[in-house]
Amino acid sequence: MTYTAPVKDIAFVLNHVVDLAGLAKLEGFEDATPDLIAAILEESAKFTADVLAPLNWSGDQQGSQWQDGEVTTPDGWRDAYNQFIESGWGSLAFPPEFGGQGLPMTVAAAVQEMWHSANMSFGLCPLLTQGAVDAIEHHASEELRQRYLPKMVEGVWSGTMNLTEPQAGSDLAAVRTKAEPAGDHYLVSGQKIYITYGEHDLTENIIHLVLARLPDAPAGVKGISLFIVPKFLINDDGSLGERNDVTCVSIEHKLGIHASPTCVMSYGDKGGAIGYLVGKENHGLAYMFTMMNQARHAVGVEGYGIAERAYQQALSYARDRKQGKTLLGQSEDDQGIINHPDVRRMLMTMRSTIEAMRGLGLECAAAFDQARRDPDEAVRERMLRRGELLTPLVKGWSTEMGVELCSLGVQVHGGMGYIEETGAAQYLRDSRIVTIYEGTTAIQANDLIGRKTARDGGKGLGELMSDMRTTVAELKALDDVELQSVMKRLETAISAAESATAWLLEQKDASLPAAVSVEFLMMQGRLAGGWMLARGALAATGLKQNADADVDYLNARIAVARYYAERTLPLVESAATIIIEGAESTIALDTAQL
Amino acid sequence: MTYTAPVKDIAFVLNHVVDLAGLAKLEGFEDATPDLIAAILEESAKFTADVLAPLNWSGDQQGSQWQDGEVTTPDGWRDAYNQFIESGWGSLAFPPEFGGQGLPMTVAAAVQEMWHSANMSFGLCPLLTQGAVDAIEHHASEELRQRYLPKMVEGVWSGTMNLTEPQAGSDLAAVRTKAEPAGDHYLVSGQKIYITYGEHDLTENIIHLVLARLPDAPAGVKGISLFIVPKFLINDDGSLGERNDVTCVSIEHKLGIHASPTCVMSYGDKGGAIGYLVGKENHGLAYMFTMMNQARHAVGVEGYGIAERAYQQALSYARDRKQGKTLLGQSEDDQGIINHPDVRRMLMTMRSTIEAMRGLGLECAAAFDQARRDPDEAVRERMLRRGELLTPLVKGWSTEMGVELCSLGVQVHGGMGYIEETGAAQYLRDSRIVTIYEGTTAIQANDLIGRKTARDGGKGLGELMSDMRTTVAELKALDDVELQSVMKRLETAISAAESATAWLLEQKDASLPAAVSVEFLMMQGRLAGGWMLARGALAATGLKQNADADVDYLNARIAVARYYAERTLPLVESAATIIIEGAESTIALDTAQL
Repeated sequence: MTYTAPVKDIAFVLNHVVDLAGLAKLEGFEDATPDLIAAILEESAKFTADVLAPLNWSGDQQGSQWQDGEVTTPDGWRDAYNQFIESGWGSLAFPPEFGGQGLPMTVAAAVQEMWHSANMSFGLCPLLTQGAVDAIEHHASEELRQRYLPKMVEGVWSGTMNLTEPQAGSDLAAVRTKAEPAGDHYLVSGQKIYITYGEHDLTENIIHLVLARLPDAPAGVKGISLFIVPKFLINDDGSLGERNDVTCVSIEHKLGIHASPTCVMSYGDKGGAIGYLVGKENHGLAYMFTMMNQARHAVGVEGYGIAERAYQQALSYARDRKQGKTLLGQSEDDQGIINHPDVRRMLMTMRSTIEAMRGLGLECAAAFDQARRDPDEAVRERMLRRGELLTPLVKGWSTEMGVELCSLGVQVHGGMGYIEETGAAQYLRDSRIVTIYEGTTAIQANDLIGRKTARDGGKGLGELMSDMRTTVAELKALDDVELQSVMKRLETAISAAESATAWLLEQKDASLPAAVSVEFLMMQGRLAGGWMLARGALAATGLKQNADADVDYLNARIAVARYYAERTLPLVESAATIIIEGAESTIALDTAQL
Repeated sequence: MTYTAPVKDIAFVLNHVVDLAGLAKLEGFEDATPDLIAAILEESAKFTADVLAPLNWSGDQQGSQWQDGEVTTPDGWRDAYNQFIESGWGSLAFPPEFGGQGLPMTVAAAVQEMWHSANMSFGLCPLLTQGAVDAIEHHASEELRQRYLPKMVEGVWSGTMNLTEPQAGSDLAAVRTKAEPAGDHYLVSGQKIYITYGEHDLTENIIHLVLARLPDAPAGVKGISLFIVPKFLINDDGSLGERNDVTCVSIEHKLGIHASPTCVMSYGDKGGAIGYLVGKENHGLAYMFTMMNQARHAVGVEGYGIAERAYQQALSYARDRKQGKTLLGQSEDDQGIINHPDVRRMLMTMRSTIEAMRGLGLECAAAFDQARRDPDEAVRERMLRRGELLTPLVKGWSTEMGVELCSLGVQVHGGMGYIEETGAAQYLRDSRIVTIYEGTTAIQANDLIGRKTARDGGKGLGELMSDMRTTVAELKALDDVELQSVMKRLETAISAAESATAWLLEQKDASLPAAVSVEFLMMQGRLAGGWMLARGALAATGLKQNADADVDYLNARIAVARYYAERTLPLVESAATIIIEGAESTIALDTAQL
């Protein structure tokens, strides 16, 4: 159960598909030189393989343990976390003014994939801290920023997101936690559930970001405010003060991510936890979206990160395990089950889909980077629209596929896959949460068809399709026999997706698009992933002309793109049929008939 | 986490789709009157709901425990098992001469679904016994039949299948367990793994069916013989004698089915376990196939049985859980998440696919029943071909979909689905084995494209497609507006599947069909399931004319068929494209490039 970060694959996407070199020319990103990035990827590969990966299985078996309000992480985790923050792994993309390294989100996303592949339960702690940092950085007062961010960026304090309550999951309008004004602060009381790393022993302090209602707040989402509630209060000299009135009441017994404590948090049992308002009253939900967009992208990265780990283990098993005479083995010694065509099918499905997801995850991050730093306002606007459009695809599609691929990883192992000690089952168990937290797939799909498509009349999607058609034109111009089916399947899929989009935009009854929204999300995700692979194949074809080209590797990129085009892109066509024809029957039954 | 057997749905298929009344007219099946069948379904529903279902979650949490070679099943299981055999639930389809009830396999399959829905870990014990009974009944000497079958049919002894060894999983040619002749018996020695209920405390004796090699046996599958190895030897008066030289060395720590002990069995540690040859030497594999075909069908039934349980829980949660204002709710009180269109999509996908799978599972059983009892030899031959053709679809497709639907069941619950106590995760964990044991999906797919399609030049598939076209003709003749899309999508799908089949039969290089075999299996399964639903919709349309018709129920059957046609059958078209275009790229890479 070792893990080797796919540095070559990641670097290929950064250097030849998403144009990191272009990003590095933007003001503020000058440090992101190719040499530095290469060094970061290598160091991260080493750290994740040597420190995080070996704790993954033991962490699952031991789990985090709750006793009397305290949570103890598994053996070895504190030491690993200390190494993590000493090397600055959590602060790559944060602003230098708070101690961050100011690198593009694209680079941070590339590194984050490795955390989640190596040890998803571990990676969740910094994932949540990042979201909290983002929300404070963008919305809190300068005083709060100065007080909290340096330690959080450094990682000696962690952050959490406190949204969910028993009656308020996907529907945050139902939040009931209260905040009463009390001088310069507020007194927060209520119960929050599903709080990832709500309590643990990895950091000196835990900074909770909590959604709550002021006494006079309007009902619904317009009456939610955001508060910083630290586990330990901060003295004026920055040292830790008294324990705040917040406790971890219990942790959940879950299908997976056993080492990541999922906490029930109780605020204000002794009169009220001291909290500080972030930004303005009643604007909490909008602020939380800053955090969520960041976190949604990160969970999408988790989706392909965990799938990459499952792929590596399945590939290794398929090379070693012998079972029957294979159709593809070249000799007596070459009879690993990898040479059974259907095992190839499973491995190729895993590999091609992971590469498609990684491409899209990095493309989305690059769009946000450009949206932040490009000198041209029109470009910034367009790239922000692009990043926001791709976010639900990265989150929704990559997580759905992540679960599916981890299940395929189990299948490659046959009976061994079902035995816990093999480790393949852990990836499936761990992965199964990613389509749920930070907004279920349905929530992502609603975001995609509503805010990201209907609201701008399909403008953002139209721009995306237009860019895809540019890629088709490049494929046609190149006219390479190896890329014929990529070109043909991509072009057909774009047309199908356009028909489905047109249908979507025509609908008057909102329940019809909603009935096919997940199908639409998966269709656009599959298509966008195929587009990324096609661009990779184009780049690989060009690079083959170089005298020192690694032709075997580049040919593999092309073959993977072809496999995906031939075996996944046809699903875009069927999805369009399903979207256009299948909405009505989805909602035809009375609930009593179900 | 209650379970209510879907008696109405099952009876609908039996009475109006697979023509159980027709089967009951065949000699030997006269007892299968509509009244008796209705009584059996009701009694089985009661037993599974009251006795088996309540032990499902506690059984998972407690698990079966191994100590010093003994296995203890969870609390309550012995009592439940005693009730099970006292009511004769394990002997429905066995021959009356050995104490069975001589009912059609179709009826037994209908009842078995309920076991697996209620408690899959429990259901595995009689599932294995059935397979063992079948092998002994068909292939053992009269003496062995008389000695073993009555107690096994009664269920006071259970049976096991001992095929797998560490180096011999899908590849049984690699079996190494030995059998040395010793007078009237053989001495068996070797290690077997993954033996379901290889040791337990539910029955007085355990009858192991073991694949082993004689000293002079040829290499490979032609040198495998089948032996009966009882845990306790049987005295001449039928009483239990000495303990045989077979022990359970350990049980596995698995992802799911924790209550079903998966045993490592050691034979002959003290010189050799006494075994009795079944049939002729070196014919073991063929005999084992009798057992496996039966067991493969049963595992397919497990696939939809566990999905039905997941559906019931998801449906119940979706009715109760409120979260946000729904698009489909008719009033303030009608705001369960079931009224969110995407939750409907998930529930309709579960329900329609389960009904499609159930239809196909019962159709396959009915074909075997007719193959056994029809007076016309040509019909018997054709129905045997049909049953054998459908078996890999029932096993392969229904298990793959079973896992997918259990995962969807988790999704309906949102965050609650990931919490073990909710129970939804258990169905996913339990279900994950069904695509693996009794032949992985790839093994089923090889069976489908090889033995069941290429070997007869597509004859069996051609007959099936022809029967499907008859259904299309009936739909056209009826010309009902509600069935338009069912007719259109079914006809298009049949044509697509025929193209893919034609491509398959043309191939000279065996690795190309093998590279798309699972896609082909899934395509044929989806299509056959859609055909079953179309026949149900046709029947429902006819039944609506009756004065006392339950129109709401019949309309639901039609709507479910329409949903499936519109949302699943388009995947048959994309599968045909994938099969015809995608084989080469699947095997294009060198293994070093993966």
